[in-house]
Amino acid sequence: MRKFYVNLAERKYPILTGQGILSEAGTLLAEAGFDRAPIVISNAKIWRLHGAVLERSLKKTFGPATLIRIGDGERYKNHSTLLAIYEGMFRAHADRRSWILAFGGGVVGDIAGFAAATFMRGIPYAIAPTTLLSQVDSSIGGKVGINTKEGKNLIGAFHQPSAVIADIGVLKTLPARELASGLYEVVKSAAIRSEPLLSRLERKLPEILRCDAGEMEPVVVNTAKIKAEVVASDERETGLRMVLNYGHTVGHAFETATGYRRFKHGEAVAWGMLAALGYGREIGLLQPEECARLTRLIHRIGRLPSLQGIGVEDLWSALTRDKKFRGGSIRLILLRRLGEAEIVSGIRADSLRQFLRKFLHESSHAETRRRGDGTNAGK
Amino acid sequence: MRKFYVNLAERKYPILTGQGILSEAGTLLAEAGFDRAPIVISNAKIWRLHGAVLERSLKKTFGPATLIRIGDGERYKNHSTLLAIYEGMFRAHADRRSWILAFGGGVVGDIAGFAAATFMRGIPYAIAPTTLLSQVDSSIGGKVGINTKEGKNLIGAFHQPSAVIADIGVLKTLPARELASGLYEVVKSAAIRSEPLLSRLERKLPEILRCDAGEMEPVVVNTAKIKAEVVASDERETGLRMVLNYGHTVGHAFETATGYRRFKHGEAVAWGMLAALGYGREIGLLQPEECARLTRLIHRIGRLPSLQGIGVEDLWSALTRDKKFRGGSIRLILLRRLGEAEIVSGIRADSLRQFLRKFLHESSHAETRRRGDGTNAGK
Repeated sequence: MRKFYVNLAERKYPILTGQGILSEAGTLLAEAGFDRAPIVISNAKIWRLHGAVLERSLKKTFGPATLIRIGDGERYKNHSTLLAIYEGMFRAHADRRSWILAFGGGVVGDIAGFAAATFMRGIPYAIAPTTLLSQVDSSIGGKVGINTKEGKNLIGAFHQPSAVIADIGVLKTLPARELASGLYEVVKSAAIRSEPLLSRLERKLPEILRCDAGEMEPVVVNTAKIKAEVVASDERETGLRMVLNYGHTVGHAFETATGYRRFKHGEAVAWGMLAALGYGREIGLLQPEECARLTRLIHRIGRLPSLQGIGVEDLWSALTRDKKFRGGSIRLILLRRLGEAEIVSGIRADSLRQFLRKFLHESSHAETRRRGDGTNAGK
Repeated sequence: MRKFYVNLAERKYPILTGQGILSEAGTLLAEAGFDRAPIVISNAKIWRLHGAVLERSLKKTFGPATLIRIGDGERYKNHSTLLAIYEGMFRAHADRRSWILAFGGGVVGDIAGFAAATFMRGIPYAIAPTTLLSQVDSSIGGKVGINTKEGKNLIGAFHQPSAVIADIGVLKTLPARELASGLYEVVKSAAIRSEPLLSRLERKLPEILRCDAGEMEPVVVNTAKIKAEVVASDERETGLRMVLNYGHTVGHAFETATGYRRFKHGEAVAWGMLAALGYGREIGLLQPEECARLTRLIHRIGRLPSLQGIGVEDLWSALTRDKKFRGGSIRLILLRRLGEAEIVSGIRADSLRQFLRKFLHESSHAETRRRGDGTNAGK
């Protein structure tokens, strides 16, 4: 088992990773300071797969826990689910001394964290993340919230967990596409902060895609550490933390332009990174060989859903809903070299728009070619 | 105009009081750091009475503001009003740089503050409180939230405003009962922290009840300062801040036992203080003459709704829903002398229950007598 800390201004909290540590969750959470049974918030699918192990461990340490199950998927991250969670908590006689354990992926973590942030003006919570994406990214940083029909995460808070228990073994039950989606976020973190992690991904990709625990654990730990460091230095996202959004601005636009149906979040981020890489090379910020190296790694992880049918107008109209894109001069996060990102201001809207038109055209074209000659490296 | 600060760990914010300062709200809020038109949240009644003055002032400084009107009264402090506020904000294209101005009493401040706490993970807000209670109490301290069917303020957050603009002149339009209700909270603050403020209330009560601005302003300022000092020393209510709840534990039980229909909040607190005074005298903590002095002041403010028909069983069952009352030994805030409160632990449930039975009996009796001989000092 590995343990490291997220250092915040007011306090620090541990992130624990390891193969099979879910079966010791009770002990680990007691060590983190919890002294009674939690209110577990999970979804039906995760609970069926791994609920028994967690439940047994919690029971041994704390006695029986309350379980609140929510629907599986982003579309349940909304106000009615939140109200159902509150309802379940009141029914279980939760009070100021209660705490929540979020057990699931990003959706569960975000909504359970927001319930914790707002129940009786804030109670503690911990997260046992069960997807790669949530282990390396969404569980760390305290951003919690829900979606509205106007957009994702528009209602929320900053509420830091008191502990994160990431069981690497659980990742084995992830569908391949879900795992790949998480790996794109791993690549993003490596791209902005750690060339060595990027090299490791290149060397060990087959083992990682197989979820070999020995190879997966250092990847999770190193990626989570990158997030933890960035968050610690900028808890409320006023500056540095923005670099974590590498690939996300254009990625979000891909999601919006396709009504959130075509891409998983990580896949959209992958396309967003490919676009940012291309644009960085075009304006001479990034060396062509570095661009090619990262592009290759992204394509090795899996086959991304196609961009076909997305016109530059759709993409641009999605992009310009983003405040960063108002006015003629815009701001993007780009790589200066592999492992080092910077916020580039003063980008001219027309130059970016022209690049995206070309990018959409070439990506659709390359894809057709890849399909045609059967050289798809994905799984 | 008077100006003083609430000093928090992370920052401080100004409280401005004065006669007629609503007409300078735009300038004052610009000085407090706001640089664009706010989203004003108010209720129909307040807006009709004082909206034009505020609107004109805001417009002169910032240009036209967005107005979101909510229902008047505690029963609107709920999730559907909150969702309507979000809805109105999205319709007005609010974003991370938007801010909210809460214009009204405690209900408006609490729900508008909670909307500010959760919209896009938190945007700034200011309050222009229009009731005595909100000027001296609820606007200060950052407790925001909404009610659920399970109870008051059960969903919420701590979110401090960036400025409070309290126009004393507005209090003139308050119904007498509303004003009295606020004065009971003023008495509470004086009772726990300031004997000089108590003396001033005793000397100037007729002028204060007439809302004479010259006499009202120092009362508002001194009471708000007490709250600000206590909050600054205990932002998250872990210790000292609890003394602000003097009279509230039993007061809440009176509200619950009568389904929140018979008493205004301040009136219930007044009854709660009378009970706490009597119990303090009974256990020998408070001198009989001090108890009598404060009891007299409370009765001079106005006629409190009767306790008749409230049985000790109703009151006790409402009290024991409160966690502080679980188990045989309980905790109450009591006065050691006028101007000094303390948290008294180890009170035996049966002794308190017996006292309350007597208190209910005697209060109903005294009331009947007061009615009979016409010596009601209220207005």
